[in-house]
Amino acid sequence: MTIRYPNGKRFETSPKSRKLPKKTNEITYSNRGMTLEEDINTTNEWYLETGKAVIHKKPTPVQIVKVDYPKRSAAVIKEAYFKQASTTDYNGVYKGRYIDFEAKETKNKTSFPLKNFHDHQVKHMKEVLSQQGICFILLRFSTTDEVYLLDATHLIQFYEQMADSRKSIRKSDVERYGHLIKIGYHPRIDYLPIVDEVYFS
Amino acid sequence: MTIRYPNGKRFETSPKSRKLPKKTNEITYSNRGMTLEEDINTTNEWYLETGKAVIHKKPTPVQIVKVDYPKRSAAVIKEAYFKQASTTDYNGVYKGRYIDFEAKETKNKTSFPLKNFHDHQVKHMKEVLSQQGICFILLRFSTTDEVYLLDATHLIQFYEQMADSRKSIRKSDVERYGHLIKIGYHPRIDYLPIVDEVYFS
Repeated sequence: MTIRYPNGKRFETSPKSRKLPKKTNEITYSNRGMTLEEDINTTNEWYLETGKAVIHKKPTPVQIVKVDYPKRSAAVIKEAYFKQASTTDYNGVYKGRYIDFEAKETKNKTSFPLKNFHDHQVKHMKEVLSQQGICFILLRFSTTDEVYLLDATHLIQFYEQMADSRKSIRKSDVERYGHLIKIGYHPRIDYLPIVDEVYFS
Repeated sequence: MTIRYPNGKRFETSPKSRKLPKKTNEITYSNRGMTLEEDINTTNEWYLETGKAVIHKKPTPVQIVKVDYPKRSAAVIKEAYFKQASTTDYNGVYKGRYIDFEAKETKNKTSFPLKNFHDHQVKHMKEVLSQQGICFILLRFSTTDEVYLLDATHLIQFYEQMADSRKSIRKSDVERYGHLIKIGYHPRIDYLPIVDEVYFS
């Protein structure tokens, strides 16, 4: 048995080292095996290069236990462990406002499992909202490649009702309370127009 | 020769593992061997607990090369390297505004060496300013335990003049353009009143 830690998935050493399908001359708008994280990272890079927003993914938190300092070369971390993140993965600034979000995907077609989120993340979202930050989640239904922006207030409500109610958010509720993001080629997940619509109008 | 990477200092595995002087019953306002990072982290924890602001230090960025997945226990990172951070260390939200800063200390008494900052950090500060984020640096002169808040615009100016001019910021310039933060016991480095004064009034 392999214990996968901390999110049940094996750690991908680098998105760039993953094998992608060979590029053809044909531009395709299909998902091409990119993870949600890769799509959001390239979208954020594009936002940064075009001066639209400054939003970064936080580094994976790691507890470093042992470091070697070999002569004439860079320090090598020889023992470290993944730590549970105490915040969401993405944050930054857009038009002076603080933006904070978490992105998750599911293969489920009819609902989004709440086990994708953790207590400390929900706590962090509440803290951000209490400071009038903009806080939301991006949810991808990977089989249909649909991405929704759902304001954190809704997630918090579903999450806190979980004990007495469902362990997932119905897709119909994601559709009702969330906002569908148009998926494109470059940027892949252009969420700022939806942020404008929801938070700046 | 030991190459220390990436900031010329050996990595401290955990602030809590460092030996602190034994506590006496006497409350002391002296520095007690705490690093600037530890002081800011405890200050930020206090801001979080008291609902004043949500500001976190970003995890140390690490390039993970090899991970073992032992049976029945947590994944162990067996080979990893420190990466240069692409942003500043601290960010978060205060009264709806985006806050972003870097904190550095020097033993120098008369000036603050600019080698404490890197090109990519200065680039990031410009990007934050262009999105109307609040961006500054906290500078500690450790021999006198004085901490100044200096708006990023000043740092950027000194940094960009470096090739034709000084490789450090004169302490008199830090005093002129910066704002002295009152050092206390709890929180240690109460920078939000200065943020109010500089950015919210």
